[in-house]
Amino acid sequence: MSFSPLVDRLMESLRVLPGVGPKTAQRMAMHLLERDREGGKRLADVLAMAVEEVGYCRRCRTLTEQDICTLCESARRDDAVLCVVESPADQLAIEDAGGYRGRYFVLHGHLSPLDGIGPEDIGLDQLETRVAEGGVEELILATNPTVEGEATAHYIATQLAPLGVKLSRLAYGVPMGGELEYVDGGTLSRAFNGRLPFQSD
Amino acid sequence: MSFSPLVDRLMESLRVLPGVGPKTAQRMAMHLLERDREGGKRLADVLAMAVEEVGYCRRCRTLTEQDICTLCESARRDDAVLCVVESPADQLAIEDAGGYRGRYFVLHGHLSPLDGIGPEDIGLDQLETRVAEGGVEELILATNPTVEGEATAHYIATQLAPLGVKLSRLAYGVPMGGELEYVDGGTLSRAFNGRLPFQSD
Ligand SMILES: [Zn+2]
Ligand SMILES: [Zn+2]
Repeated sequence: MSFSPLVDRLMESLRVLPGVGPKTAQRMAMHLLERDREGGKRLADVLAMAVEEVGYCRRCRTLTEQDICTLCESARRDDAVLCVVESPADQLAIEDAGGYRGRYFVLHGHLSPLDGIGPEDIGLDQLETRVAEGGVEELILATNPTVEGEATAHYIATQLAPLGVKLSRLAYGVPMGGELEYVDGGTLSRAFNGRLPFQSD
Repeated sequence: MSFSPLVDRLMESLRVLPGVGPKTAQRMAMHLLERDREGGKRLADVLAMAVEEVGYCRRCRTLTEQDICTLCESARRDDAVLCVVESPADQLAIEDAGGYRGRYFVLHGHLSPLDGIGPEDIGLDQLETRVAEGGVEELILATNPTVEGEATAHYIATQLAPLGVKLSRLAYGVPMGGELEYVDGGTLSRAFNGRLPFQSD
């Protein structure tokens, strides 16, 4: 409760942002109104436009306001490798990590029969068509290392194996910079099973 | 750099929010676009309205879209006590703390001759008029405990003393829950000078 119904509504609306509680929302509202109305106006305009216009890329299903996204259109990516991810956020994380030069396919979720989410809801018919067209030599199943992500990867592998595409999964292991003490048992035992020859140089 | 110019612009625009770096902006954009477009639309609408319509209360200068703010209009506040703060954020902090039942006057800053910010820029002419009208018995100078806040409080005290209003300042001292070890020397010496009789119950 403050001095103005509209300022109250602004603080309340800011709480749709992940990780923003009442105190942070208050600080954000005060900052925008007292020190950066121009930035606030710009954010309002871009956000209104984005929630209205951003849809899915016709080719890879990632978020874009274009018919075909920037990444699918780029001539500098390798058509022979296709990486399947659960979300555009995962795609951004892989892009930020650098090094991957292939294409993507975004599921926007994972199989979840109990929630009524089947293969077509996550675009698997479209993925199959794409692989069947030829040109994709390797399909990297980069779904999350969770029960649902694993099940989804397994389903895709079973479905697409007859097409003769090479299937791969991200390596499991101890996260870089982590301390063994805090790594869960499942990860640790996978890391042991997947151990590699030590390279002294 | 992502898969869409508009999504890139959204992530960039979110960085006007205080404390939001590139990673957080990315997470916010993905959340709004993937999971809460309705909340995003509402935020865009309210924010556009707020930066356009929120101005200063004619009576206390706090942020409001109304001519006179909710707090100035409330019949349940004590007209005899007026608390002068530097910002609406300070006012919200005092309201959240609870207990204060008087009115407010908001400076939106402090005196800063080097930046060309003089008495009229922070509404001191209006404050003087209000006190001169009578009805205010005590003026609490709740500017920040900084050099500029102190100087501003001192200036106001000197200017309004002839009007016969009682002037007060917030108590200085050790913050509740803090550890002495981390309290700065100035605060600690003020807390010693302002020490109070111990109340054993
Ligand atoms: Zn695409
Ligand atoms: Zn007011």
